[in-house]
Amino acid sequence: MAYEGEAAVKLNKACAGEGDRVRVAKGSAVFEGILLPRTDAGGGECLVVKLDNGYNVGIGAKGAGVEKLAAKKTVLEKFASKRMTPMKGLPEVALVATGGTIASRVDYATGGVKMVLTPEELFAAVPELEGVAAISSVSTPFTIASEDMTPREWAKIATEVGKQLNAGATGAIVTHGTDTLAYTAAALSFMLRGSKPVAVVGAQRSPDRASFDGAMNLVCGAHYAKSNYGEVAVVMHGTPSDDYCYAHRGTKVRKMHSSRRDAFRSVNDKPLAKIWPDGKIEGTNAKARKRVDGSVMVDAGFEEKTALVKLYPGAPAEQLDWLTDKGYKGVVIEAYGLGHTPTQTFEKNKSWLKAVGRCAEEGAVVAVATQCLYGRTNPFVYVNLRLMGAQGVTYCGDMLPETAFVKLGWLLAKFKDPAKVREELLKDYAGELNPRLTEEDFV
Amino acid sequence: MAYEGEAAVKLNKACAGEGDRVRVAKGSAVFEGILLPRTDAGGGECLVVKLDNGYNVGIGAKGAGVEKLAAKKTVLEKFASKRMTPMKGLPEVALVATGGTIASRVDYATGGVKMVLTPEELFAAVPELEGVAAISSVSTPFTIASEDMTPREWAKIATEVGKQLNAGATGAIVTHGTDTLAYTAAALSFMLRGSKPVAVVGAQRSPDRASFDGAMNLVCGAHYAKSNYGEVAVVMHGTPSDDYCYAHRGTKVRKMHSSRRDAFRSVNDKPLAKIWPDGKIEGTNAKARKRVDGSVMVDAGFEEKTALVKLYPGAPAEQLDWLTDKGYKGVVIEAYGLGHTPTQTFEKNKSWLKAVGRCAEEGAVVAVATQCLYGRTNPFVYVNLRLMGAQGVTYCGDMLPETAFVKLGWLLAKFKDPAKVREELLKDYAGELNPRLTEEDFV
Repeated sequence: MAYEGEAAVKLNKACAGEGDRVRVAKGSAVFEGILLPRTDAGGGECLVVKLDNGYNVGIGAKGAGVEKLAAKKTVLEKFASKRMTPMKGLPEVALVATGGTIASRVDYATGGVKMVLTPEELFAAVPELEGVAAISSVSTPFTIASEDMTPREWAKIATEVGKQLNAGATGAIVTHGTDTLAYTAAALSFMLRGSKPVAVVGAQRSPDRASFDGAMNLVCGAHYAKSNYGEVAVVMHGTPSDDYCYAHRGTKVRKMHSSRRDAFRSVNDKPLAKIWPDGKIEGTNAKARKRVDGSVMVDAGFEEKTALVKLYPGAPAEQLDWLTDKGYKGVVIEAYGLGHTPTQTFEKNKSWLKAVGRCAEEGAVVAVATQCLYGRTNPFVYVNLRLMGAQGVTYCGDMLPETAFVKLGWLLAKFKDPAKVREELLKDYAGELNPRLTEEDFV
Repeated sequence: MAYEGEAAVKLNKACAGEGDRVRVAKGSAVFEGILLPRTDAGGGECLVVKLDNGYNVGIGAKGAGVEKLAAKKTVLEKFASKRMTPMKGLPEVALVATGGTIASRVDYATGGVKMVLTPEELFAAVPELEGVAAISSVSTPFTIASEDMTPREWAKIATEVGKQLNAGATGAIVTHGTDTLAYTAAALSFMLRGSKPVAVVGAQRSPDRASFDGAMNLVCGAHYAKSNYGEVAVVMHGTPSDDYCYAHRGTKVRKMHSSRRDAFRSVNDKPLAKIWPDGKIEGTNAKARKRVDGSVMVDAGFEEKTALVKLYPGAPAEQLDWLTDKGYKGVVIEAYGLGHTPTQTFEKNKSWLKAVGRCAEEGAVVAVATQCLYGRTNPFVYVNLRLMGAQGVTYCGDMLPETAFVKLGWLLAKFKDPAKVREELLKDYAGELNPRLTEEDFV
């Protein structure tokens, strides 16, 4: 929606539009920055300016003087085309936009946040990106809230990223809602066979807020995408402040807080790197994979009949029977501690042990991860675990339950033989298995 | 099993038995400590002595000299009776033993760990307890691995603890396997209506290992049980060393590591206190509830048709339909981020939104907690959340999903009206809702 009323009149007079650098004077206050799209607040008569310090300010047009200082940066114009001419001297980075808070704004009709931002708007909001990398292409395969993402969308993102990397992009940035961002990062880690940097970034705060974190995450993500790392990483704030981001290995990261800007944490591994918005990168994980030239193979299959089941005291084993009856090919049980599953439930003769045995007999792969999240399963310690192991259960070591789910579904699409899948589950594909946990890998 | 062969002969000659203080000399080495039950290693011919520094040592009986220094402490004899005469001057603490690693040992037949320890053996292994509190009663309502615990066992433990507290005990210690210890602690927090200290303790390492943590946890648990706190708390190691324990509020604690001794962490709250084995207690939470004299009411009902369902991308909404069809009265959805639930799945027209609506229509209570674990749900931010709210969903704020599950099952047994249950879910019963999260409440 365009600016209206007095705002439109004044912008028109100054020949200024979205993305232009403007000066707005009102009373004794003077604001300089990039004109952002209207936010629906104030009926389109409130000029929204992104200041150089990163804050957005809204200024009522009434009584304000508007002056255009510079035309919008060329990069914004490029943004509209699918394939863009990269800026000279900067590495080419592909951007794949999928929705989420990083691409959202407040809907003043309901008071909630809605996804409406186009890539152009997103870029207009983060002009800092321009000096960092040349965005060589922009794709929006779909715009979806991250809670609505399914493995089908993972495949679309992987396919698009692979295409851009093979077309010559140095690396890629995927913008994504934060809720299932870590699941997608794990999926891309498996689905993109190759060693190029892919930064998955999101925002915990919407772009209309002063605390918007998406801009810095995008900038740090761009630094990562042109770096010499060769993995899929989640690039998000490392602290509640705007000081640096962490690049977390895509298979070892989890959203651990519902609202904080530093919500993402590496679990059972160290982050790959600390990245400052000015481009400084400090490696923090000796086992980080490096960039390897050559093409990226996209292996985006996923067996949709894969489930994740979290245990709790009294959980009915029939839950698993139901999945077996539905023809599920793989189930990750988010069990207790070292991998414990109850051997008894409320109903006599309806044990998890039996249900697991039946599920495995039907040819499904049953894997066990720990709901502790930190630490690893260890099937050799307790008698009950050995009984379970005898039913054909595969213990996932230090893999996160979420990563185990993604990996299992991906393997089931690759290999038809359950025995083979069980074997491959315990092979490291993308850093998802850390053979040596250290003290610092815990909170 | 008793000691055998040369060990039995030498112990017999020295008139020494389990629990006695002995000196065992072999070659140039001399070991002094409490004789523990045999561990099955060395065919019963290996003397196991708990040294004063807390370590257990095994000494082959062959060539060893055995001398009895003191008869086993009287407290061990008391331990056999259900109601014991408390030691003079020490507060009376009731012990309820339920199994788990704290009451386990290695089964050399399978190489795994088995639960076999009786309370007597447990006490023999932790003679340090004697100076801390008078164990006025010992109950073993059942011996069960914690992964096999169900809400039925929670009720038994609550009933027993309540009985002992009302019979005059100053406080209580519950020994428990660590896997579902936090679930039980939450259950006891709701089921015991009153303000007396109840310490739930476990061990992450078995008693045959030098790194056994159960002894210190028990001692710190005893200090808590005789303190002026008035809540159910999980008392476990605060660091990987044997320096101090934390008393975590029973409703705000989670096992966050599969194997570390400091696996338990307070989530969205500060621990109640730091407790040192010498009895020093440092309060760490200004909102800790204090002991209140008077009887404890046991309210141990639990609606068994209560479920916990964790979401993941592609999760079938039919899973919820299945619970609805099975007559479930309450479901906690472990959703994403601020409480997001997918509005679409693989199958068109089979959305979670519809399934939630149907479940609520059938009279069940659907509650939503966050799989981030840290932070709170916030139904007012996103459009999808508002749509869900319109289906009658209750957002659980900063309650852990596990605590929300326990509370929902408990409330459903108390109140028949779903509207009333939804209302009560958001009332604080046992510190499960923290209205003000601070910086330190995250990792």
